[in-house]
Amino acid sequence: MSFQALKESVCHANQQIVHAGLVTLTWGNVSGADRDQGVMAIKPSGVPYDRLQPEDIVVLSIKSGEVLEGSLSPSSDTPTHLVLYRVFPGIGAVVHTHSKYATGWAQAGLEIPCLGTTHADHFRGSVPVTRPLRNDEVENDYEKNTGMVIFERFRDSEINPNEIPAVLVNAHGPFVWGKSLDSAIENAITLEYVAECALLSTALNPNAIPISKVLLKKHFGRKNGKDAYYGQNPKP
Amino acid sequence: MSFQALKESVCHANQQIVHAGLVTLTWGNVSGADRDQGVMAIKPSGVPYDRLQPEDIVVLSIKSGEVLEGSLSPSSDTPTHLVLYRVFPGIGAVVHTHSKYATGWAQAGLEIPCLGTTHADHFRGSVPVTRPLRNDEVENDYEKNTGMVIFERFRDSEINPNEIPAVLVNAHGPFVWGKSLDSAIENAITLEYVAECALLSTALNPNAIPISKVLLKKHFGRKNGKDAYYGQNPKP
Amino acid sequence: MSFQALKESVCHANQQIVHAGLVTLTWGNVSGADRDQGVMAIKPSGVPYDRLQPEDIVVLSIKSGEVLEGSLSPSSDTPTHLVLYRVFPGIGAVVHTHSKYATGWAQAGLEIPCLGTTHADHFRGSVPVTRPLRNDEVENDYEKNTGMVIFERFRDSEINPNEIPAVLVNAHGPFVWGKSLDSAIENAITLEYVAECALLSTALNPNAIPISKVLLKKHFGRKNGKDAYYGQNPKP
Amino acid sequence: MSFQALKESVCHANQQIVHAGLVTLTWGNVSGADRDQGVMAIKPSGVPYDRLQPEDIVVLSIKSGEVLEGSLSPSSDTPTHLVLYRVFPGIGAVVHTHSKYATGWAQAGLEIPCLGTTHADHFRGSVPVTRPLRNDEVENDYEKNTGMVIFERFRDSEINPNEIPAVLVNAHGPFVWGKSLDSAIENAITLEYVAECALLSTALNPNAIPISKVLLKKHFGRKNGKDAYYGQNPKP
Repeated sequence: MSFQALKESVCHANQQIVHAGLVTLTWGNVSGADRDQGVMAIKPSGVPYDRLQPEDIVVLSIKSGEVLEGSLSPSSDTPTHLVLYRVFPGIGAVVHTHSKYATGWAQAGLEIPCLGTTHADHFRGSVPVTRPLRNDEVENDYEKNTGMVIFERFRDSEINPNEIPAVLVNAHGPFVWGKSLDSAIENAITLEYVAECALLSTALNPNAIPISKVLLKKHFGRKNGKDAYYGQNPKP
Repeated sequence: MSFQALKESVCHANQQIVHAGLVTLTWGNVSGADRDQGVMAIKPSGVPYDRLQPEDIVVLSIKSGEVLEGSLSPSSDTPTHLVLYRVFPGIGAVVHTHSKYATGWAQAGLEIPCLGTTHADHFRGSVPVTRPLRNDEVENDYEKNTGMVIFERFRDSEINPNEIPAVLVNAHGPFVWGKSLDSAIENAITLEYVAECALLSTALNPNAIPISKVLLKKHFGRKNGKDAYYGQNPKP
Repeated sequence: MSFQALKESVCHANQQIVHAGLVTLTWGNVSGADRDQGVMAIKPSGVPYDRLQPEDIVVLSIKSGEVLEGSLSPSSDTPTHLVLYRVFPGIGAVVHTHSKYATGWAQAGLEIPCLGTTHADHFRGSVPVTRPLRNDEVENDYEKNTGMVIFERFRDSEINPNEIPAVLVNAHGPFVWGKSLDSAIENAITLEYVAECALLSTALNPNAIPISKVLLKKHFGRKNGKDAYYGQNPKP
Repeated sequence: MSFQALKESVCHANQQIVHAGLVTLTWGNVSGADRDQGVMAIKPSGVPYDRLQPEDIVVLSIKSGEVLEGSLSPSSDTPTHLVLYRVFPGIGAVVHTHSKYATGWAQAGLEIPCLGTTHADHFRGSVPVTRPLRNDEVENDYEKNTGMVIFERFRDSEINPNEIPAVLVNAHGPFVWGKSLDSAIENAITLEYVAECALLSTALNPNAIPISKVLLKKHFGRKNGKDAYYGQNPKP
């Protein structure tokens, strides 16, 4: 049982979010899961991206949170990642950044409405924002509780995390996920783009309205699900 | 009858819109027409720009939409491009991007007013926005109907597509065109610049007013038409 | 009587405004004067910056506007530059760009208030905006009249062009100048910076107020005039 | 007693703020202190960053302000730096820039509220803004008085400069500090990020509210103080 391939791809994914312009200083981390082995691999805490090596990546048990491989401390957001893998069984990777526009919405305490087709291509509806954590949730198991309010938000509003693979943690920033590292990173890049465009649109027109459910379904279906016809596979 | 030169120039044009900063991920496509042969060539769907080769470009009949050359699926926006070539006989290239500021206006459902001379140099008046598509237009032949609402917008308002070579598709993004690939790309870059400056101006002054018809005509005429005197040809 | 050194420095200055991020496509031009010889040298019209060579630069008589050297057409804005050299005898270089934030203010029809010390270091007060040109001024000698409304703005308000070396042409964009090419370029970069910061400040606080006359004088005097003590010369 | 190592690290730090995008033209300077020797080293005034060498750095006595080493004039902001080292004994480096978003807030005359956890990770509360200087404070010992109004702001409101290592000088721009050059630069980068995100959030929601004291304490404590658990040291 080797984690080498997982650690290499997680290391590469952490560098990709930097190249995509989503990261300031060391604020961001990507994890990837190997569901068969029941593990996730994540960036160590506070290590500069340009020095990051596959052997720095920390591997943990999703179930117990125990460190299985790696000598560095895992990201301080590790408990949040662990909760997401536990409650959203369909996801294989998690990206957390403080990308500016998504963070701007999170700090505003507002969900990002679906104002256009680019949003609909990736997120089937508004990107939700969590409630603020209560004081006791901050003081004890803060990072785990961050994951729990995300879960609460999706569960209580019956949001499908496979159809809306992102959330804004109130006053904090975005967590984004996907089936694979590639899809999670694509969703993170898209979220930041969508956050910027939605801000521009609402600045121009405070009464801008979300797209229709029919158009939303059409666009989400173009790129996702059995009838998808965007890209080279399946061929139309 | 060879399409090699057309495919090479269309491949290059698709890379130019990336270098110009108009593209996020794979959201954008350029097509070019050979009017004598009645064909257009377009980017394949979902292929990363840095791997794009001339042999990946797909050639189709403008009249029938039939693929004449190329083994990959053409861009999912192909039916929109085809409609534009059919209804606007003066155009030789089409650029579609999700560039941020133009998309911001499209999502706001607002046309871009002509607030300055840079706008007037390229677009003789406001850049129009289409009406939202009806549900039945979304559910059947969506991409073709996208082209049809563009046509409707220009026809019903008697807008000359050679004088205003761009449109904002409501809640989607810009389609831009030109006589040649070079002019279509120049218009796409200009549209994004104009969209940004108009947003800045309206943020500073919500009552900013469009320039006069006389100044509009003067500037459009400096760069276009028989009396043009910008650039090296004709020499003043 | 040789213009070679002037042409080389003007060619280099035109490339500098591109590297400084002030130029989109070919929208910008720099001219420099040799006052002893009574000439100015300017970029040719519509030539891409990366192909610009010193031998492309056009030399004209400031007094008559006659081309003295160069086979290409000079910038279409040449008559504006000529007027500025004639009416502002203290200036040695002119920079015209469509830099985004300065153009945003010009299109808003608003002067840029002096909200901070960076502004005061380079411009001793608001950067003024011209009145819109009348129809007859647009239709005949448009570019010359652009220079004349700049002159009118400074003359009628008794603005010293050596103390406020920039103007916003209404609905067009900035013209900036200086004693030398270096100072004109520095002023153009500063104007764009100042335009952006002033927009941010007024967005945050619509009631933001200009700095006091005492602070304005202090900062302008730190970098300009006989008591200047910024930089290495004179040494404090 | 050699200043060579200090001069090299201060020279490098001045180049780092340029690479971090915090500097336009020559507007910015970093100083570092050697508390044991009672000196600070600072950038010379008006020297371009790309030509800056360690031997250009000027070393002064913190107590007397006397130049101890270096032939160039020190930054015109030197008296402000000196005051900060004198009144804030816990700091070892000072960064002054005109970074755009922080300057936007300074020109608006507004403190930056703590709207999110990134802010709280570095600044334990709002980043304060000074009062405008009185005319007599501008006319005599301007740069020293700039330092004094910073001190007044922290003293009168009992703000701990080790917990809020930054200030906005009214209508001017930010001064940022830290225990070391590295921490001061990190704080300067963070301040600009925080200034941008706070502007985005207030644009989206003018009623956005600061985070709770409990969350503020939690996040500041994650990265600072004896219970810090972010990064690799101490290991959790």
